Amino acid sequence: MVFPSKLIEDAVNEISRLPGIGKKTALRLVLHLLKQESKATESLAGSLLNLRNKIQYCRDCHNISDDSLCNICGNSKRDKSLLCIVEDIRDVLAIENTSQFHGVYHVLGGVISPIEGIGPSELNIDSLIKRIPDSETKEVILALSPTMEGDTTAFYITKKLKEHRIKISTIARGIPIGGELEYTDEITLGRSILSRTLYDV
Amino acid sequence: MVFPSKLIEDAVNEISRLPGIGKKTALRLVLHLLKQESKATESLAGSLLNLRNKIQYCRDCHNISDDSLCNICGNSKRDKSLLCIVEDIRDVLAIENTSQFHGVYHVLGGVISPIEGIGPSELNIDSLIKRIPDSETKEVILALSPTMEGDTTAFYITKKLKEHRIKISTIARGIPIGGELEYTDEITLGRSILSRTLYDV
Repeated sequence: MVFPSKLIEDAVNEISRLPGIGKKTALRLVLHLLKQESKATESLAGSLLNLRNKIQYCRDCHNISDDSLCNICGNSKRDKSLLCIVEDIRDVLAIENTSQFHGVYHVLGGVISPIEGIGPSELNIDSLIKRIPDSETKEVILALSPTMEGDTTAFYITKKLKEHRIKISTIARGIPIGGELEYTDEITLGRSILSRTLYDV
Repeated sequence: MVFPSKLIEDAVNEISRLPGIGKKTALRLVLHLLKQESKATESLAGSLLNLRNKIQYCRDCHNISDDSLCNICGNSKRDKSLLCIVEDIRDVLAIENTSQFHGVYHVLGGVISPIEGIGPSELNIDSLIKRIPDSETKEVILALSPTMEGDTTAFYITKKLKEHRIKISTIARGIPIGGELEYTDEITLGRSILSRTLYDV
């Protein structure tokens, strides 16, 4: 692509470095910003800089936070006896949006993946193990992706937590609500039969 | 969506104001920036501010430019006798990318659209009419969209330019290269028969 201006070219290159945004989309965004008042660009750039410079990670759960303690860990109404372990911040948001969980979280920051060179020491697992004895945790819920890496991580954490004698559970796997049996892959369908739920009749 | 942090929420809101970007995509971009070095965010924000504050519009053709004269109008190798009229800057980029045009441009900044309240005075038409007598222009090429608004604008400009006795042409309409007759709409196909090209045999 030939650009009529170095300024445009720089901005397009910077924007197209973001995931899922190509040069054409970046150019559309740049031309959109040029059509708006310069205040719009200033407040966009300002909020990004503000975010990057001021953001903190919760000292307890490693969730993103505006303070040293996030507003989930700092909320006295949350049930501190339930600890949900997730891979990253997006999972916290996803679970929060269900409004079905009132405990607290622990964000690992990834899963164990030997291929990508991520071992347990790269993740927030040590702080999890240290956190358990001092806390009121009675049950740990593993909410990790049902992949090989997720399962490995779950297995590793389960082993590490064994001596603490707390309940460990994992979120249910099965057919999604609204999903059709016919189109479900055989592994999920197989697991859903094995972990069937009894009707209370 | 519930956000764990006001900083995140602000950034997501700002980003999702851009066209074609929703809250979910905005959040993905924000989390991506948080994973990168803070230098990445600084250079992104910097390039946007730089662009918005320093960009100029070419005094001749209204194309975006780093200086008061754009690098197309300022290029002595461009054929000043050919003037291509386009709706916006994106059209300049599209035509430049074909490498088939070596003349100069005039960017209207839109097309006449009574419904959206855009009349000739909102567009760079006056400056076009003023520009013609002083310039070496011999032919004006209308490269506007084949829509009602585009056609109205073309008609208006043609009328205004009549007294200057210069050649006026429009880009060819027809079946796109690689397109199949069968799937072409009847208006395009009809026009392509009316404006058929003679073989030089």
